[in-house]
Amino acid sequence: MSGTLYLLPCPIAAAPLDAALPAEVAAIARRTEYFLVENAKSARAFLKQLGHPRPLRELAITEIGHAPRAADIAGWLAPLASGSDVAVVSEAGCPGIADPGGTLVAAAHAAGWRVRPLVGPSSILLALMASGLDGQRFRFHGYLPVAPEARAASLKALERESRTRGETQVFIETPYRGAALFDAVLETCARSTRLAVAADLTGPDEHVGMRTVEAWTACPADRRPVLQRRPAVFCLLAS
Amino acid sequence: MSGTLYLLPCPIAAAPLDAALPAEVAAIARRTEYFLVENAKSARAFLKQLGHPRPLRELAITEIGHAPRAADIAGWLAPLASGSDVAVVSEAGCPGIADPGGTLVAAAHAAGWRVRPLVGPSSILLALMASGLDGQRFRFHGYLPVAPEARAASLKALERESRTRGETQVFIETPYRGAALFDAVLETCARSTRLAVAADLTGPDEHVGMRTVEAWTACPADRRPVLQRRPAVFCLLAS
Repeated sequence: MSGTLYLLPCPIAAAPLDAALPAEVAAIARRTEYFLVENAKSARAFLKQLGHPRPLRELAITEIGHAPRAADIAGWLAPLASGSDVAVVSEAGCPGIADPGGTLVAAAHAAGWRVRPLVGPSSILLALMASGLDGQRFRFHGYLPVAPEARAASLKALERESRTRGETQVFIETPYRGAALFDAVLETCARSTRLAVAADLTGPDEHVGMRTVEAWTACPADRRPVLQRRPAVFCLLAS
Repeated sequence: MSGTLYLLPCPIAAAPLDAALPAEVAAIARRTEYFLVENAKSARAFLKQLGHPRPLRELAITEIGHAPRAADIAGWLAPLASGSDVAVVSEAGCPGIADPGGTLVAAAHAAGWRVRPLVGPSSILLALMASGLDGQRFRFHGYLPVAPEARAASLKALERESRTRGETQVFIETPYRGAALFDAVLETCARSTRLAVAADLTGPDEHVGMRTVEAWTACPADRRPVLQRRPAVFCLLAS
């Protein structure tokens, strides 16, 4: 009997494991000995938090890099043939969403292996749920351009699309650029456009706020979201 | 101290609760006595499965309908003011995603209540993770049109968009129309377009397959996904 390729989510904030993963998902992770990971350091911390019964040095923990090669992937998936399970682990959240894990999953499908996605935290999904914006149709853009002019053009284009289609636009930013992106939305978008900002989801400083651009602009500084050093998810819906 | 509006996910398949929800999420649900739900019958079954400590008849379980009115919403959220928590529950999966719960969340933000999204299963996200298709950019369309001509036009438009943007297109179908939609993709889309089909996610008959349209067409009937009477999620990426 061949093994299963698990898509194993991991925590997205400093929080107890039992707020992030179902018990059965943690149990599957503890039974697994082969891990294909985006970041070895964070994966080891996760396996330690899980209380994996094997010493970490006895586990096969392989960093997949940003553009894994087909020959490497075939080797990494080989344990499946001899009946061992393999788990793909992202640096944070759900593997295969905004990370390079999808390449491994595609190779597993091509080889006919069983693929099972497991339940866990996704900052994109949690932000969308908590945004109060229409989740019936939505689009995830990943990161927007960094240069101010390109960023403004990108914001204008996605705001236009949101207005035409009634579709929520979701994008993310790194901890050190979130505040600049927030300011750029207030400067660039229409006053009636609604913006939700989610930071430190599932963590001790979790905060989700949603207002119109007009209301955010009028909002005192101490009631704006604190985005410094915290990953943020933005959801935007134009009317 | 005022209460919190929780976005409480519920199972998407017949499976043990500890495969679907983190223990802390189940504990929050058991402490809550006010529930705003998409479907009262499925919500009661969920609360029974949770082993809620109060008899179900003593809990406030309110169906929100498809287009809740502002006056009703204000009343439903009133327990927050007196310090009680309120949980929004979808018929299946995560509230606020492809369901009417978003309206309640928007009202809670406008009134300044704390909103907390909780971790749980989302068929959209699980399908995308397991598809092996690029999750760096994706778009969720909800249901496509039912009429064959409109459905084909919609498939062609989203395939074109996927090709131009390198973006995975995600759409869903009801249990009794999934097989027809699968056939429509094979008839309508390019041979090189990749299609992932996920059915009964987290359930006993979970199956995720991903092939090109050409490979699906050549695939013997007994290796195609069984979509009858099972909700399905489709992910499509054109090259």
